Amino acid sequence: MAQKPSIPKGTRDFSPVEMARRNYIFDTIRSVFTTYGYSQIETPAMENLSTLLGKYGDEGDKLLFRILNSGDAFSGIDYESFRIEGDSFNSKALSLQVAEKGLRYDLTVPFARYVVQHRGELSFPFKRYQIQPVWRADRPQKGRYREFYQCDVDAIGSSSLLLELELAEMVDRVFAALGIRVLLKINNRKLLTGFGDICGFPDKVTDITVAIDKLDKIGLPAVEEEMAERGLTQEAIAVIREILSLQGGFAEKVQSMRTLFSGGSSSGLRSEAGLKGLEELEELFGLIEASGLSCPVELDLSLARGLNYYTGAIFEVKALDFAIGSICGGGRYDNLTGIFGLPDTSGVGISFGADRIYDVLLGLDKFPETLSDAPTVLFANMDAASARYVIPVAGALRSRGISAEIYPDSSKLKKQFDYAERRGIPFLSINGETEAASRTVNFKNLSSGEQRSFSADDIDSILAFLRA
Amino acid sequence: MAQKPSIPKGTRDFSPVEMARRNYIFDTIRSVFTTYGYSQIETPAMENLSTLLGKYGDEGDKLLFRILNSGDAFSGIDYESFRIEGDSFNSKALSLQVAEKGLRYDLTVPFARYVVQHRGELSFPFKRYQIQPVWRADRPQKGRYREFYQCDVDAIGSSSLLLELELAEMVDRVFAALGIRVLLKINNRKLLTGFGDICGFPDKVTDITVAIDKLDKIGLPAVEEEMAERGLTQEAIAVIREILSLQGGFAEKVQSMRTLFSGGSSSGLRSEAGLKGLEELEELFGLIEASGLSCPVELDLSLARGLNYYTGAIFEVKALDFAIGSICGGGRYDNLTGIFGLPDTSGVGISFGADRIYDVLLGLDKFPETLSDAPTVLFANMDAASARYVIPVAGALRSRGISAEIYPDSSKLKKQFDYAERRGIPFLSINGETEAASRTVNFKNLSSGEQRSFSADDIDSILAFLRA
Repeated sequence: MAQKPSIPKGTRDFSPVEMARRNYIFDTIRSVFTTYGYSQIETPAMENLSTLLGKYGDEGDKLLFRILNSGDAFSGIDYESFRIEGDSFNSKALSLQVAEKGLRYDLTVPFARYVVQHRGELSFPFKRYQIQPVWRADRPQKGRYREFYQCDVDAIGSSSLLLELELAEMVDRVFAALGIRVLLKINNRKLLTGFGDICGFPDKVTDITVAIDKLDKIGLPAVEEEMAERGLTQEAIAVIREILSLQGGFAEKVQSMRTLFSGGSSSGLRSEAGLKGLEELEELFGLIEASGLSCPVELDLSLARGLNYYTGAIFEVKALDFAIGSICGGGRYDNLTGIFGLPDTSGVGISFGADRIYDVLLGLDKFPETLSDAPTVLFANMDAASARYVIPVAGALRSRGISAEIYPDSSKLKKQFDYAERRGIPFLSINGETEAASRTVNFKNLSSGEQRSFSADDIDSILAFLRA
Repeated sequence: MAQKPSIPKGTRDFSPVEMARRNYIFDTIRSVFTTYGYSQIETPAMENLSTLLGKYGDEGDKLLFRILNSGDAFSGIDYESFRIEGDSFNSKALSLQVAEKGLRYDLTVPFARYVVQHRGELSFPFKRYQIQPVWRADRPQKGRYREFYQCDVDAIGSSSLLLELELAEMVDRVFAALGIRVLLKINNRKLLTGFGDICGFPDKVTDITVAIDKLDKIGLPAVEEEMAERGLTQEAIAVIREILSLQGGFAEKVQSMRTLFSGGSSSGLRSEAGLKGLEELEELFGLIEASGLSCPVELDLSLARGLNYYTGAIFEVKALDFAIGSICGGGRYDNLTGIFGLPDTSGVGISFGADRIYDVLLGLDKFPETLSDAPTVLFANMDAASARYVIPVAGALRSRGISAEIYPDSSKLKKQFDYAERRGIPFLSINGETEAASRTVNFKNLSSGEQRSFSADDIDSILAFLRA
């Protein structure tokens, strides 16, 4: 009854080497979060479907993994009541009846739920990070998985732009620590609102943004064509053209936009939201300048990321030396907790894409060479007596923080040596009767070939040799 | 449309304080595993149900959380074909049709699946640890959750008792590091087989063990009664009585059992398995003595733990100063991977119960006082200019490993002070125009009240004050 083992498509096993690399990424990110005073929380893998449904749009609802009610989920179900006509059933309704829980789809909605549920216990501003897997029933493809980790960091309960600055600083520190050169792109949702306002189509902000986003790829004439298809008039398109034609550096662009938002565009319309967005943008860029980030920061008016969700700053991080989508992104939201009954609570957060960061580090060969899951020393096993002889030596080394393994079987030395080599264990210690009789221990550095003999009680000297 | 937020019963949110404590436990365990050369792996939360079903008994199958197939799970289902009679449906078969995946129930079966699936890439003996949540649709109650973490450490591909020794040593080191006094109880499955052999009921090993296990609670007469109810003859019970009446220390007990297993019991029956078990037991206790564990180790003939699974050593760890079930346990298994097509692969492993260890540490007040999720310094926010003034100071401290927060809003100082106090932040730094003008920074130790002023550029002196 042997089965050929496999795992569900879109999921992954992580090997020791992959875990060492992933932990390196998570530890680096975590240590930066910690130096900024962010605290870790965890939420359950399963949430009530009522918490999850309707938060990610219709498409998201379809991608939720649903969990059958425990016990006998189908017992007592009146199938006839779900029959629509003939052999057709209302399977959506049936599914809701038999599955009341789902796997979390992201870390944002559970965070909002957490904040509302525990608001009495929290100190605001509440600064948390969360590193956990999420699940989406997306069609698996290269680089897209059905189970993947998110690393989210959010501060909620303050609208201060100092928090945006912190996020920008954390981005800078994380990627500097990882050795990845990045560009931090920043936009503000209120500017996008402003574009809709002054072109006279405040309800077409999404259409405008989607079109603008393609500027680099398809060019201005095609973008204008797309806006026309999306229902914008030629007059409105003329206003957008004025925005897209803005020249100069950050200060000049802001100045020109201020003119446009103040009624200076061809439409003559004014946008308070746009002006407020400019104010925020200037303040944030001022703070960033005062802080002195090492990575380049750029205003990108086409940046939208989950438009209907963000209300202020929008962030996105691109790797400069590796072609891949954004490796980090986020923004300011003003009403995330409203759906759970806590309105008017502003927050800002970003999410680091661990899988893509992994791919970038691997592609650029930037993982530290010292990353290893192997112990420092393998004690060879010559026979039962000599293995017993090294037990306390191995123990003493471990007590001093050296990771050590005793090969469990008295196999041929060639086999034990091969094991050390395959695992990349740097030191081999071979000891037999002679060493036991003289209370000595041998160590060989397998890369340099250097070999030394020590008194079994001289742990300090052994440590010095192993750490050199 | 606000909902009152909640989470599924039997699941938990972990707050920053709980996370700090849990990470302390996991980090301690992990660092011990690492010094013994064990490597971390992770497997997906979802496994194919074909991997999970039938591995945990009928009861276990019922406790699996099943995941509805993605897309429209119920589309095209012919409900009539599941009708048994009248309104009764074969919901087990229906459930299998609409749910092909389940959440992992433990880390052992996924580990066996992993080893078989990846055997071409692994070096044997393969020593792995795994710290991940598991899910069981058990009825939630105090201390029993539907989502909980397991910390498993296993070595597979060798039958050497040096591996049992390693596990015993790791138990000793983990609990010594955590400051929990424990008793390590050891048994061997082959002795239990031997009991069945010499009492003439080799197929009643489970019944015998279940009864013996109650000796402490119900006394010998009741145990004998139970064995009779379970079908043992009076002659067989007499043999068990001989075993349970064994006196003396470890060596004497082993000697007496050797006599019994060699045909010296009232039945005159002999057990090769029992004799082999004694040999293993003696060797393991000899190794443990050579190693010199700091915790007491005891032979416990009633210890069984998942009897049909273990084939050699069986381990269980009890906290000595706190009344709670076992906090760690495991044993040797010889055919775990057989079900997935890789027979004759011996392994041994133990699992640390993180939730119970948490309860013990909390109950004994043994969590380190220094465990905190709070940053070291809070920079108060007097106004925009003074906040901007401390940005680079906070940045310099963070670069030197000090965690620092700038309060995001220029709120009343009382509010900022309260925030520092509630979060347990040890140092407060209040700086206004005067400090900015003189390029100085103030720090106050909130517990001692000591206050010092430093040049904003003298990071070394600031560090010395904050670390003192």
